[in-house]
Amino acid sequence: MANTNILHPKHPSDSLTIMNEIVLPNDTNTLHNLMGGRLLHWMDIASAIAAQKHSNSIVVTAAVDTVSFREPIKLGDVVNINAWVTRAFNSSMEVYIEVWAENIPRGEKIKCNDAYYTFVALDSRHKPVMVPQIEPESAEEREKFDGALRRRQLRLVMCGKIKPDEALELKNLFLK
Amino acid sequence: MANTNILHPKHPSDSLTIMNEIVLPNDTNTLHNLMGGRLLHWMDIASAIAAQKHSNSIVVTAAVDTVSFREPIKLGDVVNINAWVTRAFNSSMEVYIEVWAENIPRGEKIKCNDAYYTFVALDSRHKPVMVPQIEPESAEEREKFDGALRRRQLRLVMCGKIKPDEALELKNLFLK
Amino acid sequence: MANTNILHPKHPSDSLTIMNEIVLPNDTNTLHNLMGGRLLHWMDIASAIAAQKHSNSIVVTAAVDTVSFREPIKLGDVVNINAWVTRAFNSSMEVYIEVWAENIPRGEKIKCNDAYYTFVALDSRHKPVMVPQIEPESAEEREKFDGALRRRQLRLVMCGKIKPDEALELKNLFLK
Amino acid sequence: MANTNILHPKHPSDSLTIMNEIVLPNDTNTLHNLMGGRLLHWMDIASAIAAQKHSNSIVVTAAVDTVSFREPIKLGDVVNINAWVTRAFNSSMEVYIEVWAENIPRGEKIKCNDAYYTFVALDSRHKPVMVPQIEPESAEEREKFDGALRRRQLRLVMCGKIKPDEALELKNLFLK
Amino acid sequence: MANTNILHPKHPSDSLTIMNEIVLPNDTNTLHNLMGGRLLHWMDIASAIAAQKHSNSIVVTAAVDTVSFREPIKLGDVVNINAWVTRAFNSSMEVYIEVWAENIPRGEKIKCNDAYYTFVALDSRHKPVMVPQIEPESAEEREKFDGALRRRQLRLVMCGKIKPDEALELKNLFLK
Amino acid sequence: MANTNILHPKHPSDSLTIMNEIVLPNDTNTLHNLMGGRLLHWMDIASAIAAQKHSNSIVVTAAVDTVSFREPIKLGDVVNINAWVTRAFNSSMEVYIEVWAENIPRGEKIKCNDAYYTFVALDSRHKPVMVPQIEPESAEEREKFDGALRRRQLRLVMCGKIKPDEALELKNLFLK
Repeated sequence: MANTNILHPKHPSDSLTIMNEIVLPNDTNTLHNLMGGRLLHWMDIASAIAAQKHSNSIVVTAAVDTVSFREPIKLGDVVNINAWVTRAFNSSMEVYIEVWAENIPRGEKIKCNDAYYTFVALDSRHKPVMVPQIEPESAEEREKFDGALRRRQLRLVMCGKIKPDEALELKNLFLK
Repeated sequence: MANTNILHPKHPSDSLTIMNEIVLPNDTNTLHNLMGGRLLHWMDIASAIAAQKHSNSIVVTAAVDTVSFREPIKLGDVVNINAWVTRAFNSSMEVYIEVWAENIPRGEKIKCNDAYYTFVALDSRHKPVMVPQIEPESAEEREKFDGALRRRQLRLVMCGKIKPDEALELKNLFLK
Repeated sequence: MANTNILHPKHPSDSLTIMNEIVLPNDTNTLHNLMGGRLLHWMDIASAIAAQKHSNSIVVTAAVDTVSFREPIKLGDVVNINAWVTRAFNSSMEVYIEVWAENIPRGEKIKCNDAYYTFVALDSRHKPVMVPQIEPESAEEREKFDGALRRRQLRLVMCGKIKPDEALELKNLFLK
Repeated sequence: MANTNILHPKHPSDSLTIMNEIVLPNDTNTLHNLMGGRLLHWMDIASAIAAQKHSNSIVVTAAVDTVSFREPIKLGDVVNINAWVTRAFNSSMEVYIEVWAENIPRGEKIKCNDAYYTFVALDSRHKPVMVPQIEPESAEEREKFDGALRRRQLRLVMCGKIKPDEALELKNLFLK
Repeated sequence: MANTNILHPKHPSDSLTIMNEIVLPNDTNTLHNLMGGRLLHWMDIASAIAAQKHSNSIVVTAAVDTVSFREPIKLGDVVNINAWVTRAFNSSMEVYIEVWAENIPRGEKIKCNDAYYTFVALDSRHKPVMVPQIEPESAEEREKFDGALRRRQLRLVMCGKIKPDEALELKNLFLK
Repeated sequence: MANTNILHPKHPSDSLTIMNEIVLPNDTNTLHNLMGGRLLHWMDIASAIAAQKHSNSIVVTAAVDTVSFREPIKLGDVVNINAWVTRAFNSSMEVYIEVWAENIPRGEKIKCNDAYYTFVALDSRHKPVMVPQIEPESAEEREKFDGALRRRQLRLVMCGKIKPDEALELKNLFLK
């Protein structure tokens, strides 16, 4: 991999990506609500663009963290998605995604989901490539940056790459 | 129609709508370029959201002005669309849409298209309803606001609702 | 470009292309009407086939002229599209498209739209190539042929390639 | 069912329906050929429109006769479909469909398929309703009209509604 | 073609392929029933996988036998498709497909269709290649194996490759 | 909610749902690999059918647990999905999903993903309704049944409904 020293760190706001969609009949299930798979696909596109902006390279999705579907999103609603990179680890990036549903004629706007997607940056021969570090600025950015380490350990535990008792950040959470 | 007096004017920035999409195989023609119809559809969604934000009502597309396809947009490019309401006329709104294509790994970003879509606001019984006036702020917003009158005359001439010699704004353009 | 002298002129009827579609749930918006973008896509396909027939070459869409959506087209309607080349200019062709919506069980058929799309013919290396001239036959074909010059000037004015006072054909329209 | 006496017979040409499509990436399999299911779907739409034109009513597909896929249809080809009603039986209609594939730039046009689809006409309460008889005019129309009886027996034998030895028309074919 | 002697025969159960789908709005016609073309497409995928499993090679659809649409399949129903190879002839395979529709909340399950698709196996240069013979085991498998000869003759008669009086298996059916 | 006493427990095998799909061009990203969102959508359909079979009711997706994309799935691969209910909690069900990708002509089959989706059962008025308990039989079923409690606590911690130190099952994992 290329030497990371030459890569200037970037801010989360450098990768901020905004997406707006209208829920059309083609996107709904038999209850006239947005299908989960369709939403996860829109979130994938928005967060992949954010990861491209951060790394200036091709990216592939490596993981999707737990997503809860709390509120049904209805036919005709406007879905507003904001995505930005929270932290980088060598060639991988964690992206935070926030999803809002708006019924504009009724003046209603609710937060429906948030989620973390992980991407790996690839060079032109499709090999992993170093990406710039993240330098958080706002309080929210700093909080997500700190939590990223804990979420990464959880991913590694869940796919069996490290043992629970090696996940020090996670351990502290449960011993408090 | 409802009395327009009670509607506070709005700024173009109140309706600004941002959309980002990645050109996927499903969106391309046999030359691996984004299909015109697919782009016009994305522009329709972005501008319909802008018109909803301005009017706080359901909207339907009334007209699409001339669109030129200058530059092919390639498979894998990120399409960035910005849309905002330039001017309102009773129940109709003109929306300006700007389309950029980015090849992020190569650091290339070009402006591909701009266009004007016209929408009509409908109430809950699907009848046209008055929308707020536009109060432009920046120089660009003022220029689009002024030009909207001329473009509206052109639309009315082209669909035969007024005669060319009644289109005073247009006439001045050609007599200069 | 190849020498145009060797290309025999063609009639508009040589490129006539007929298309019929049924509006299915997948094609509709939240009001159960055909989406504008979907119709523009069908018109793009029908007119591209007409341009291919005229030029016997690959074609790409160069411009879509103003389209007004006067009448909603409903779920289940049959959409009937007729497209033919009105005039050729070097490597570009203007195609006229007429759209009808039929509710066959009710015996209703209305004209919904007409529009002009412009295409450029490409050779096998994707470079513009000369196309045959058009020789109009019927009165309608002759009228469209004559108007094509004026519409072309309007397109050139609108994308800033010529100034309004250079558009002689258009000028006459407003001075009458 | 309504009395058929009041329905004037119609000609096959009254229901002729023409459809043109371009094979786009979205329509192809991993060999870059048009997928069989996609073609059968286009044939279904073209023939349903023909059956609607003949019966002036809603129609549903009752059967698709054997379809052979002789020639692959390639990405970028224009598919030309012609469909017309060959014969009516009470509330059902047999529709003949002919499919051509054109590579217009190469000047190649080949016949790819023909097939017979059967539709049932429904009234507004979704019950079968009588349709007009067919009066063939050309030699080809007469030949299809005569063969329709034999094909109908074959369908009835194949779905077990009549026994092979009751299918007199078919029997003659094999005893010749 | 490769010598068939070296290919061990296989059982129908070796190619059994199960598919389950939910009928979503995108799959339905204007009566809210599953579109015929969509079902034929799902049947094509299930049977192509069965033919791949039998032949361990790429396959292309050669023919779809008569399909009757007896029962409408409704929005929200689960479609259950089972497909297995009934008999092989040189490089071609006949696949039997059974389609069930379930409304699970109501505890209803009905058989909707059965059909035969024929596939040809291709090698890596896209040339036809020998496939293993079928050795039926159960009574149903044996019955389908025997009937395959008759159905093949019918296909050959219908596409004009043999004359009705050469189709000995079929003849016996009508002379009984 | 209805009294759970009257519901007989069910076995995981009662809800086993098998799905097979071929990766077509329409399902791939610009690297010709299956798009993550498309796979998550297929997993959603397979697991929703499993949850319907267990509960005999309408179901909605409540959560998708972390999914890792370890291996790219290529254009033309067969995707094989198996889904079954691991455990029920009042009106909710956890479904385990295993995804395999096969390149049949090359004789390659690899396990690509596994994941847990959670569904809620709804009655005909769209209110949550009690579902039968699960009685595991095999060793694998028992292991998934036991782990379901821990995964449920993790979901509740992650969406903020319980505090980490209340998640006793999880705590034990990290204190070992």
